[in-house]
Amino acid sequence: MRYKILDSSNLQEYLFSLPEIKNYFNATKLIISEIGDGNLNFVFLATSATDSSKQLIVKQAVPYLRCAGESYPLSKERMTYEIRSLEAFSKLSQHIPKIYHSDEEMSVIIMEFLGEHIIMRKGMIESIIYPNFAKHISSYMANTLFKTSSLYLSSADKRSLISEYIGNAELCKLTEDFVFTAPFMKHETNAHLPELSDVAEKIANDVELKVKILELKNKFMNQSDALLHGDLHTGSIMINKQETYVIDSEFAFVGPMGFDIGALIANLIMSWISHKIQDDNETYQEWILECIEKIWNNFVLEFCALWDETQESALLTDGFANSDVLKAYQKEYMQTLLQESIGFAGCKIMRRQLGIAGVEDIRGIEDSHLREKANRLALSVGETFIKKHQNITKIDDISKLLKA
Amino acid sequence: MRYKILDSSNLQEYLFSLPEIKNYFNATKLIISEIGDGNLNFVFLATSATDSSKQLIVKQAVPYLRCAGESYPLSKERMTYEIRSLEAFSKLSQHIPKIYHSDEEMSVIIMEFLGEHIIMRKGMIESIIYPNFAKHISSYMANTLFKTSSLYLSSADKRSLISEYIGNAELCKLTEDFVFTAPFMKHETNAHLPELSDVAEKIANDVELKVKILELKNKFMNQSDALLHGDLHTGSIMINKQETYVIDSEFAFVGPMGFDIGALIANLIMSWISHKIQDDNETYQEWILECIEKIWNNFVLEFCALWDETQESALLTDGFANSDVLKAYQKEYMQTLLQESIGFAGCKIMRRQLGIAGVEDIRGIEDSHLREKANRLALSVGETFIKKHQNITKIDDISKLLKA
Repeated sequence: MRYKILDSSNLQEYLFSLPEIKNYFNATKLIISEIGDGNLNFVFLATSATDSSKQLIVKQAVPYLRCAGESYPLSKERMTYEIRSLEAFSKLSQHIPKIYHSDEEMSVIIMEFLGEHIIMRKGMIESIIYPNFAKHISSYMANTLFKTSSLYLSSADKRSLISEYIGNAELCKLTEDFVFTAPFMKHETNAHLPELSDVAEKIANDVELKVKILELKNKFMNQSDALLHGDLHTGSIMINKQETYVIDSEFAFVGPMGFDIGALIANLIMSWISHKIQDDNETYQEWILECIEKIWNNFVLEFCALWDETQESALLTDGFANSDVLKAYQKEYMQTLLQESIGFAGCKIMRRQLGIAGVEDIRGIEDSHLREKANRLALSVGETFIKKHQNITKIDDISKLLKA
Repeated sequence: MRYKILDSSNLQEYLFSLPEIKNYFNATKLIISEIGDGNLNFVFLATSATDSSKQLIVKQAVPYLRCAGESYPLSKERMTYEIRSLEAFSKLSQHIPKIYHSDEEMSVIIMEFLGEHIIMRKGMIESIIYPNFAKHISSYMANTLFKTSSLYLSSADKRSLISEYIGNAELCKLTEDFVFTAPFMKHETNAHLPELSDVAEKIANDVELKVKILELKNKFMNQSDALLHGDLHTGSIMINKQETYVIDSEFAFVGPMGFDIGALIANLIMSWISHKIQDDNETYQEWILECIEKIWNNFVLEFCALWDETQESALLTDGFANSDVLKAYQKEYMQTLLQESIGFAGCKIMRRQLGIAGVEDIRGIEDSHLREKANRLALSVGETFIKKHQNITKIDDISKLLKA
C-alpha cells in the first residue's frame, strides 16, 4: 500500500482494509488511542469497541522525528529495518511480540498488545525482581545471535543477511555519533551536570581510553558477526514476572555480537549503580549482579549447544575441525566475545552519563548530589571496562570489579 | 546491451558498435585473436588492421568455467565485480590499465593492451629485478585500501561500498573453501606430492594451527575494512622495469586489508623459497626480501600520510582525537594490520602447497626432490606465520624468520 500518515481519524478504515486484522477484531468499530511517548514514531492502541480483550498495537514511522516535528526530517525507511528484524527474530525466539501485519511501504507494523507487561527499566527503578529474565534474555540472545552468524548460516545466506540491513545507515550513524564519539569530546549535544565538566574534560584527553574507544567503534562499524537488535537496553524490553519480550529493533544491523550483550549488561549495571547510590536494598543489588552472571553463563551454554549441533556453516565446513579444535576455538571465541561485550558496555555506560541521552535510572535521581555521585561511579566503571576489557577472562570478574 | 557471447566472428561488429571504441581504432577492419589462457574468462586482443599500435584487450565472462566448458556453470556476474573494482581502483591509483569501455550486462571490459609488460610471476621465475615494484605496489595498496576504508569514507559511503560488492558471493566462497578450508583437511580437491601425505595429515590435526586459521577465516568473512583486490598475487600483476599494473580483480569485495597485503607477501616469499631451493643467485633472493620490507615500510608511510591529511571520516570525527590519540591509534592500527597480513600470508603459502591451486614458482620445479624440499620449507614458513603472527611487531621479523 502506498505510504500515507495514519492518525486517529483514518486508522480504523486502514485496519479494516487488512483482511487478517479485520478478521482478528471481528467488530464494526474500534477505539483508537495514541499511546506512544517515544522520540521517533507514532504508536496507537486499537481496541475492539465490543470486546476489550481484542487489542493491537499499530506503530508507524513518519518521515520526521516525532518529538521534534516536520522540521527534523528522518527517513521513514527506518521502520523497514524494525519490520525485517522483528520478523527475523520472531522466527528464532519466542521473546518477540506476535506480529499481525507489516508493510514496509507504509512503514507500519501491527503487533500484539502487551497489556500485562511494563518497560523493564521502569520495573527496575521500582526494584521489581524478574525471576525468569536472565533465562529468557540469554536464550533470546543465544538464538538470535548464533542463528544469524557465520557459525550457522551458509556463506551466501550470511551475505544476503548483511545486504538486507546494510541500508540502515541513518540509525547506525546515530550510534556511531552518540555512543562512540560525541560523549568523549567537546560537543554541543552533550548534556551532563556542570559539576562533571572537569571529569568530562579529563576523559576527552585520555589517550589510552580514546584509543580503545576507536578500536571498539571500528568493530561496531566493520565487524559483521550477526544480526543485532542494535539497541538492547532495558527500555527495549517489555516484561512481567512470567514473560519477557524484546521490542523496538529499528537499530538492527549486522554487527558485532558483543554490542547487544554489552548494551544489556551496561543497562543492568546502571540500574545497579542507581540502587547502590540511592537505597539500602542489598537484595535487589545482589539480584542484579547475579542476573548478569546468569545471563552470560546461560548465554554461553545455549550458544555452544546450538553450535555443537550445527554440522556445517560458513565458518565450519563439516570435517574441518575435530572435537579438540572445536573445543579450543569455542573457548577462545566465547572469551573474545565476553571481552568485546564488556568493552561495548563501557562505552554505553559512559555515554549515558555525558551524552545527549541519559537513562532514567540515573538521570531521574532527584538529589543532584546523589545524581553526581552516581554519574561519577558510572563513569569510573565505564572507563575501567573500556580500558581493561581485554584482560577479562570470566564473568565473575565483573561483580568483583563492581564491588571493589 | 543484452548479454551475448563474443567470439572472433562477432567481436569486430560488437566493438564497432561502441562509439568510443570505433573512434579509438579509427579503422575499418580489426585483427582479432583469442589470447586468454586463464581458467575463468575469454580474453581477446583486437588490433587495427592498418595501425598495429592500436590494440585493445577485450575480456568477457561466460556463464560457465572457461577451462571446463558449459557443464561447469559459474555465474557470469563475476565480471560485474571486476568491472566495478577496476573502475574504482583506477580512480584511486595509476597502477590500473586504462579502461576504454565496460558493460555489466554484457560482462565485458575493454582495456589498454599491456604489450610491453609480462605477468610478474613469470618475470620472477626468470630472476628479473623490478626496481620500481615495491614503490608502485605499496602506493597502489595504500591508496586503494585507505580510500575505501572507514578512515576516509563517510559512514554512509562505506555502507554503499559494502553493498556494491556483497553480492560477490561465489568468488568469496571459492576463497573461503580453497584458501582457508580444504587444504587443511582431508579433501578430494587437494593436490600435493604423495610424499607430503604425512605432513598434510599432521597439519590437519594441529589444534593450535587450525584455531588460528578459523580466526583468520572469520576475519576474512566478517571484517569489512576496505575494498580489496581479493587475489593480489604476482599472477595478477603486469610489470616491466618501469611500470606496474594490477589486473584481474574479480575477487574484489570489502574485507580485511591484511588479506591483500598478505597475498602479495606470500607470493613474494614463495618466489624466494623457489630461488633459495633451486639456485645460488643470492642477489635475487636478497632483492625479494628487501622488496618485502620496502613494500611494508612505504605502505605505512603513504597510508599514514593519507590518514594525516584526512580531517573527517566515518571513524574519526573532526575534533575527536588529538595528535597523541591519533599517533597512538595509528601505531596500533598499523601493527594489527601487519600481524593480520602475516597471518593471511601464512594461509596463502600453505594452501599453495597442499590445495588445488599451486604456484608455478614451486609446482614448476622439475626435480621432484627439490620440489618436495620447497613444499616443506613453504609449509614450515606458512605454519610459523599463522601460529606466530600475533607476536610480530615489525617487518624485519619476517626476513629474520626466513633466514633462520
